[in-house]
Amino acid sequence: MTLPRTMRALVKEQPGVGMTLRQVPVPPVGSNDVLIRVRHAGVCGTDLHIWEWDSWASGRLKPPVVIGHEFAGEIVQLGPEAEAAGLLALGDLVTAEGHIVCGDCHPCRTGLGHVCRRTRIIGVDRDGAFADYIVMPASNVMKLDGIPTEIGAVMDPVGNAVHTVLAGDVPGSTVLVLGCGPIGCFAVGVARAAGASLVIASDFNPRRLEIARRMGAHVTLDPGSEDVVARVRDLTGGDGVDLVCEMSGHPSGHNQAFAAARLGGRVNFLGTPSRTTEVDFARDVIFKGLTLYGVTGRRMYQTWQQMFRFLRAGQFDPRPVITHRFPLEQMAEAIQVIKDGQAGKVILEVAR
Amino acid sequence: MTLPRTMRALVKEQPGVGMTLRQVPVPPVGSNDVLIRVRHAGVCGTDLHIWEWDSWASGRLKPPVVIGHEFAGEIVQLGPEAEAAGLLALGDLVTAEGHIVCGDCHPCRTGLGHVCRRTRIIGVDRDGAFADYIVMPASNVMKLDGIPTEIGAVMDPVGNAVHTVLAGDVPGSTVLVLGCGPIGCFAVGVARAAGASLVIASDFNPRRLEIARRMGAHVTLDPGSEDVVARVRDLTGGDGVDLVCEMSGHPSGHNQAFAAARLGGRVNFLGTPSRTTEVDFARDVIFKGLTLYGVTGRRMYQTWQQMFRFLRAGQFDPRPVITHRFPLEQMAEAIQVIKDGQAGKVILEVAR
Amino acid sequence: MTLPRTMRALVKEQPGVGMTLRQVPVPPVGSNDVLIRVRHAGVCGTDLHIWEWDSWASGRLKPPVVIGHEFAGEIVQLGPEAEAAGLLALGDLVTAEGHIVCGDCHPCRTGLGHVCRRTRIIGVDRDGAFADYIVMPASNVMKLDGIPTEIGAVMDPVGNAVHTVLAGDVPGSTVLVLGCGPIGCFAVGVARAAGASLVIASDFNPRRLEIARRMGAHVTLDPGSEDVVARVRDLTGGDGVDLVCEMSGHPSGHNQAFAAARLGGRVNFLGTPSRTTEVDFARDVIFKGLTLYGVTGRRMYQTWQQMFRFLRAGQFDPRPVITHRFPLEQMAEAIQVIKDGQAGKVILEVAR
Amino acid sequence: MTLPRTMRALVKEQPGVGMTLRQVPVPPVGSNDVLIRVRHAGVCGTDLHIWEWDSWASGRLKPPVVIGHEFAGEIVQLGPEAEAAGLLALGDLVTAEGHIVCGDCHPCRTGLGHVCRRTRIIGVDRDGAFADYIVMPASNVMKLDGIPTEIGAVMDPVGNAVHTVLAGDVPGSTVLVLGCGPIGCFAVGVARAAGASLVIASDFNPRRLEIARRMGAHVTLDPGSEDVVARVRDLTGGDGVDLVCEMSGHPSGHNQAFAAARLGGRVNFLGTPSRTTEVDFARDVIFKGLTLYGVTGRRMYQTWQQMFRFLRAGQFDPRPVITHRFPLEQMAEAIQVIKDGQAGKVILEVAR
Repeated sequence: MTLPRTMRALVKEQPGVGMTLRQVPVPPVGSNDVLIRVRHAGVCGTDLHIWEWDSWASGRLKPPVVIGHEFAGEIVQLGPEAEAAGLLALGDLVTAEGHIVCGDCHPCRTGLGHVCRRTRIIGVDRDGAFADYIVMPASNVMKLDGIPTEIGAVMDPVGNAVHTVLAGDVPGSTVLVLGCGPIGCFAVGVARAAGASLVIASDFNPRRLEIARRMGAHVTLDPGSEDVVARVRDLTGGDGVDLVCEMSGHPSGHNQAFAAARLGGRVNFLGTPSRTTEVDFARDVIFKGLTLYGVTGRRMYQTWQQMFRFLRAGQFDPRPVITHRFPLEQMAEAIQVIKDGQAGKVILEVAR
Repeated sequence: MTLPRTMRALVKEQPGVGMTLRQVPVPPVGSNDVLIRVRHAGVCGTDLHIWEWDSWASGRLKPPVVIGHEFAGEIVQLGPEAEAAGLLALGDLVTAEGHIVCGDCHPCRTGLGHVCRRTRIIGVDRDGAFADYIVMPASNVMKLDGIPTEIGAVMDPVGNAVHTVLAGDVPGSTVLVLGCGPIGCFAVGVARAAGASLVIASDFNPRRLEIARRMGAHVTLDPGSEDVVARVRDLTGGDGVDLVCEMSGHPSGHNQAFAAARLGGRVNFLGTPSRTTEVDFARDVIFKGLTLYGVTGRRMYQTWQQMFRFLRAGQFDPRPVITHRFPLEQMAEAIQVIKDGQAGKVILEVAR
Repeated sequence: MTLPRTMRALVKEQPGVGMTLRQVPVPPVGSNDVLIRVRHAGVCGTDLHIWEWDSWASGRLKPPVVIGHEFAGEIVQLGPEAEAAGLLALGDLVTAEGHIVCGDCHPCRTGLGHVCRRTRIIGVDRDGAFADYIVMPASNVMKLDGIPTEIGAVMDPVGNAVHTVLAGDVPGSTVLVLGCGPIGCFAVGVARAAGASLVIASDFNPRRLEIARRMGAHVTLDPGSEDVVARVRDLTGGDGVDLVCEMSGHPSGHNQAFAAARLGGRVNFLGTPSRTTEVDFARDVIFKGLTLYGVTGRRMYQTWQQMFRFLRAGQFDPRPVITHRFPLEQMAEAIQVIKDGQAGKVILEVAR
Repeated sequence: MTLPRTMRALVKEQPGVGMTLRQVPVPPVGSNDVLIRVRHAGVCGTDLHIWEWDSWASGRLKPPVVIGHEFAGEIVQLGPEAEAAGLLALGDLVTAEGHIVCGDCHPCRTGLGHVCRRTRIIGVDRDGAFADYIVMPASNVMKLDGIPTEIGAVMDPVGNAVHTVLAGDVPGSTVLVLGCGPIGCFAVGVARAAGASLVIASDFNPRRLEIARRMGAHVTLDPGSEDVVARVRDLTGGDGVDLVCEMSGHPSGHNQAFAAARLGGRVNFLGTPSRTTEVDFARDVIFKGLTLYGVTGRRMYQTWQQMFRFLRAGQFDPRPVITHRFPLEQMAEAIQVIKDGQAGKVILEVAR
């Protein structure tokens, strides 16, 4: 196959709102890299921040950057070292870990590559996946082996959920998921697949609660009309839950998390708040003997191995969470359905 | 030996400042209990809160209560079931875990008795150890087997330090102790005994830093004149420390803790703050991949086993932290030296 | 209710084969004890060893002893301390942990009560449950809270399976169960409930494999006609399984376990062999980086908490394993169906 | 610096006893590789097996192979990708992990690279370090940052000891080291550095016991004249030790390990036996609730990080174990002192 010289790409061209679809050069392939023809890509809350050019985005991105970090596609070219390794081949359908890490810092050398000091994230710190082609280091690439690219395109956020839920002792446990955006809904399904005995999900949005129920939540709660902490205590014999997955990123979610966790329990934080939370460490952390854990990315690559197992065994199916599909040209519409709060996971269909 | 009917005891008789030394009945011994003649008792910051009758004390204590929860002494009477068990005997020199737990709640049944739902703490929720005699459930009592009662009397706070430090992976690690009160200084010694490669201690008080150095701190820092976080980064090749032991209980300590911990590191909180802390979860917990842990009491009874090992092997000696000794009659003086901030650990000499 | 003075009990009266059903005194109730009217009791392989008076039995038991350690029933009397504790009440339907431990030795004090140095097992070291009444320390007693006594009577061996399976990291893992006696079949169900992605069960006996399939085994293997290790490798992409639960107690099972475990995998041993196994530590343990774990009893009481969660949530149902029911008078028949190898779990119906 | 075309190398040229020192080409440097001028190299028991051409060696090696896997030296050339990564530079003094792993198999992807399915060991499966130059993948190379190359040359076996000892919970624990060859003696020092409360070392050879004492053993035992298990029980209050490090590779060592470990304890196996051991799993593993672990290589690269910390903090000094130094030309003499059993660690001085 002859590769074209240029390709379509959604580019953050300069500071300010929006992105631009334009022709850019197909990126060059380094010695340890592979070039992937993107088929499906997932739109993430992060992409919304970049579109809106909020304070996080303006502090981090250096335009022009091709956006997008969730994707799956087909290998169309391999660099010489990547080819020599013999692990990947032309035509392989793959997805990839979007955190490109140094492999040399203390975290990387001790199994904590997900918090590498020098992480570069595709679609944020270097060019990303909302494009016809993306180049990735071979070590970050994972073969789908039969998993459809549509599902492959959401394995990045599914992996966030797997990391969050399995950073706890789940079989036979009681789990509260606070916030039922796509990752929260994935977390519900992962908790069920991992043998949780009770999964409670909470969100203000009834459509999201409906998806959470489809993913297996035993109970869904609306904090707008119910006292979440009181209901959780009631459902757990007064104890509170073993594990809270905090996916809302709201200070009110944090406070619910502390209050709803049982003595000696655990709160794993994934939802990234835009402001600070007042924490009563004496009452809420110390006297309760809680463990708190901040979740970044995916364990590299334990999370991926667990995720492949769940998906291949049919224990977990992310598809009920996928509610919208758009072509690459309709990114503005994709952003709009997310902003409207009516979407689960939104997918871009880049190629067949 | 014939036991007297009454004994001296420091009693919180009613709401308000102070305590009263007066004669009270020697407590009756239940079937599973032992009666202990107190020799040495330790004065804790908690006792200061009770003396001052702050909001925590007034919300928790129901006067009259005999105060004091750190002690060691001699067994002078055993209840019939305690005697039948054959594990303790008249004349044994002992100390005791002061948290009396139910043994039946979910935490108790899963190895987390230190956060039992129904914990009753001696000297707080029931009569304590600033008295000639104290009655304790036999299961809470530990034989000293040659450890002097003066050291036995501080094993409760040493145990707090052991719990805090060993709730981390210490051999070869870098440790920052924030706050060098008695438990902070004990933590320094425990971290050294457990094989930490670098122990940094921080406090505003130069006398406390001097004790920390005597306990083995490689480096001591004064936040009044030094940038603690910058110094910690400098001492750790820019990484930050593996483990922070937060013993200060101050919001500023919390913020230093988050900033000084390395990516993927751990912060264990023991110092109990009197007010809330504003936490930037996104920057300080989530993106750093931190684990936080709230430390209550001592693991029952792993902490005690580890502590006995350290003490008996001579790996850890708490005595440099003990700076003052008073008879039971001079509790006011004991409280004063603590309030003056010039004391390490203060001991009451109750009997020979 | 007035209690009778005497009761029926299956007694090992003297060395030699068999047991005798006879009238014995109802046991006295100590201060911390409860007396339980037995409704259902489970017959275990251990009871068969005692019946047959094999070398293990003759080395351990001191006749006369009432046999039986798996049971559930109703509390009919409480000792004064047990009553004062307020946790159990007349009429409660309960089961119990049959290992009565000292609470004082190093294992007991560090969360390893299941290997207490002074364990006394009911029906082995002291009188057991094949009787109308049994006396138990209150701390060993667990309320069924709606679980039928028939299921309560098998929670001891279900707990063995829970201990074996959950002493591993199960969600998303591949599990091989070697030996499909009752505990092996329970282990299959527990592995499924805990989120294993692939559960393979192996046994020579087609009836047992049928029960294993009903408990959720994805694949069953007959070592008489199939190469178990080759099939396991084939089913796991050549890797071998993450976790082997060795329930057969045969040296051939041990060798299959080592060969079928993946590099860096885990083998948990519960089946107690009657003879030694030749182990090639270099090839099978060291170069494979395996972890091996010997399973005794149940974690006290984490295993029970996990088991109650699984049972109450309906994630695990042991009933397909129960194949036979006999009245107390037909113990000889119960022993015979076990010896014939055609039984799953055999239950004695002691009272209504 | 201009590199020579050829170099000295100790080569296993063909099946049979011995090795040959001869001129071979300096190896070519791949894109991700570095070329290292060897200064010091360690002689390992493995090299003795290869010299003697025992059954393991003849089954694994494909002559001709340059021998040697323990070394340190200076970087003299970098491949283009290794140079571009910017982590290593000409003139860096370095050592290296000798297991070259695939990075792609299940163990590699889940933090268990030390048991990679496709491991290639230098000096065994590909050319090694008993030569003037060796080529290594950059990812395997570790900067010494001030540690002398003589110590760098023994970090491979020190890492074996660190892996063995720290695969346990060491602070405050009791440790038995069975077998005081170099790695056993290193293990003694590592256990002390990591806060063990009691370290007992056992070996038939009094010279090795003398080295073990210099490395910090509290007690040394000679199985030729003492009952090791009885002495260990005596020294541990009858309990046995928390952790056994089995470094002897003898069936008799295995049996002592099982008997000397406490209930619920741990045995880590590093010594590779040349024959099988009869294991009584019921008595020695299951009823004791033991955990056994097979140690291969070093955790990649947690073990290295821990080792650097211990070495740089001065907590651990391997030098008392180094007893002999030879030039590359005297390999036969080096082999002889090892065979005579009078050596600790033997070093080859390859260059200045």
